[in-house]
Amino acid sequence: SRSINLAVIPGDGIGQEVVAEGLKVLSAVLPQDVKLETREYDFGARRYHATGETLTDADLDDLKRHDAILLGAIGDPSVPSGVLERGFLLKLRFAFDHHVNLRPSKLLPGVATPLAGQPEIDFVVVREGTEGPYTGNGGTIRKGTPHEVATEVSVNTAFGVERVVRDAFARAQARPRKKLTLVHKNNVLTFAGHLWTNIFNQVAEEFPEVTTDYIHVDAATIYLVTDPARFDVIVTDNLFGDIITDLAAAVSGGIGVAASGNINPDRVYPSMFEPVHGSAPDIAGQGKADPSATVLSVALLLRHLGHDAEAARIEDAVSADLAERGDLPARSTSQIGDALAARVAG
Amino acid sequence: SRSINLAVIPGDGIGQEVVAEGLKVLSAVLPQDVKLETREYDFGARRYHATGETLTDADLDDLKRHDAILLGAIGDPSVPSGVLERGFLLKLRFAFDHHVNLRPSKLLPGVATPLAGQPEIDFVVVREGTEGPYTGNGGTIRKGTPHEVATEVSVNTAFGVERVVRDAFARAQARPRKKLTLVHKNNVLTFAGHLWTNIFNQVAEEFPEVTTDYIHVDAATIYLVTDPARFDVIVTDNLFGDIITDLAAAVSGGIGVAASGNINPDRVYPSMFEPVHGSAPDIAGQGKADPSATVLSVALLLRHLGHDAEAARIEDAVSADLAERGDLPARSTSQIGDALAARVAG
Ligand SMILES: CC(C)[C@H](C(=O)O)[C@@H](O)C(=O)O
Ligand SMILES: CC(C)[C@H](C(=O)O)[C@@H](O)C(=O)O
Repeated sequence: SRSINLAVIPGDGIGQEVVAEGLKVLSAVLPQDVKLETREYDFGARRYHATGETLTDADLDDLKRHDAILLGAIGDPSVPSGVLERGFLLKLRFAFDHHVNLRPSKLLPGVATPLAGQPEIDFVVVREGTEGPYTGNGGTIRKGTPHEVATEVSVNTAFGVERVVRDAFARAQARPRKKLTLVHKNNVLTFAGHLWTNIFNQVAEEFPEVTTDYIHVDAATIYLVTDPARFDVIVTDNLFGDIITDLAAAVSGGIGVAASGNINPDRVYPSMFEPVHGSAPDIAGQGKADPSATVLSVALLLRHLGHDAEAARIEDAVSADLAERGDLPARSTSQIGDALAARVAG
Repeated sequence: SRSINLAVIPGDGIGQEVVAEGLKVLSAVLPQDVKLETREYDFGARRYHATGETLTDADLDDLKRHDAILLGAIGDPSVPSGVLERGFLLKLRFAFDHHVNLRPSKLLPGVATPLAGQPEIDFVVVREGTEGPYTGNGGTIRKGTPHEVATEVSVNTAFGVERVVRDAFARAQARPRKKLTLVHKNNVLTFAGHLWTNIFNQVAEEFPEVTTDYIHVDAATIYLVTDPARFDVIVTDNLFGDIITDLAAAVSGGIGVAASGNINPDRVYPSMFEPVHGSAPDIAGQGKADPSATVLSVALLLRHLGHDAEAARIEDAVSADLAERGDLPARSTSQIGDALAARVAG
């Protein structure tokens, strides 16, 4: 479409700084005839402290009117753990049915990795975003007593698993290697594990060109550090996806460059794009954050909205910038943003 | 005690080969006046195929009579996923109340790691062993239909969390660095997360010398590859412990050297010692498996039974053997066992 109506949620900590650079690069890459409208929303710790609100129904109505959402980071030590995560981040993912949580991992040339020998890393994790242990099901009895019992219920439905597995197969089919790995723990979590495994095997029949593989989540962490080249597309549950994508980010350049999309493929709701990193309060406001993860999230956003050429220009700019970093003195958040904006404009 | 009455469960695949070497080294290290009695049990895939049984009440009664259990590995592709894991391994851990699952990670000098720069790694994971998502709670409705719903319930009790947290604090207190890190996901799994966090903070008051730290499980995987030296003792839930100890093994020399103890600290039941690796059917029967993880599990077993000097002799022997490997041609499972037996005897 020739216009983009974007909701912008800078959020807490470094969220403010990295989103500013994301928008800078977005403006620079868009052709003149694409009209960009943005509206900024002040969600996060400040709003919570001022009003006690995290995300109201009225907020959801407002956000719903946009084509997409760009988020920086949400979370601050002044707010009890879980309040903003469950009350904002997860509430939004669930309310807007972001069932495909897309997290690409690519180790770009010249980028530092903690792994020896600079292995080839180029895979995408398709993490389920609306089920599993993230539903908030469960509870506590006898809280605070020696007899407290707390439960967490992982909820998995055929409907929810099939749609994300199907999405992952389609993505695998579209990539040169056409390989899809299911990551679960079906030898222990046998109820959910059998559901995932059966649906995975059923959908596989519709994609005969895709090579399939199954790995337990514990073993997957081993392969991510000893043989990451074995992965092309991974599909997995919400919690396993959370864990392995942080590890995947760590080995493929760090969370400074890890992008993600919380996607509603049906396009009933706007999709949300955000760096994998958090609000990093320890370095906030100092211009130390790397905006590359947010800039790469903008590329995912553009691709989702059909601006493929612009998405590719951003990815190339980040690659080129990263490749040259070794030779440059350290730059500030906005200097990196400026450099990327100049590259995509040129 | 001056006698050891050991139950030996070689199990499936390479389990047979590595347990033989573990026993070889055990016999070699024990002083003449310690009487070693062993009884071998044929659990695993063969027994399951022959009788349909995995672990009966009568088996548990037999096993209970021993001072400790040495296990190789259980699991075979001919048995549906979950049958032996839930029906044997987890059944035994739960029946014998193995609530402390101890998994040390130490990168020994000269040992290869996938991490660049040979970082310092020397920590212990205390994984809870009888609760969390491993309880088998949950179920499936409308199985095999498009309306299937499968749940997995993580059950966490104050009783179960406190005893393992207390064990971990005591272990941290006894180590030079005296640092304990709680790994959980308390920003999402808020019911279980608050229980763990509150108990952790309460027990911390009894151990004022121990430095404490909290890290989400996703971030923990990052630190395990970028800064493993930050860890001294980790305490965590059953599933998170499963995942991070495979990663910990991978970065600290591989699962060929990762030992574990399933410990009942009350000594009401025998504790079980086993390598972290599985039955590896692809290399079974070829003399290719590294018995070091089993041999190190024997060291944990000896320490549990009070034979500290012998445990240390085994650990030193494995260290020395690993340090020299780079210069040696590849050896078979039994050649490595012979070398270790010779070292501990000499
Ligand atoms: C902040 C938290 C709720 C979130 C998650 O667990 O999904 C984060 O870790 C992520 O991966 O986006
Ligand atoms: C085989 C499986 C049941 C087991 C577990 O998940 O605990 C294994 O992965 C382990 O870590 O000992």
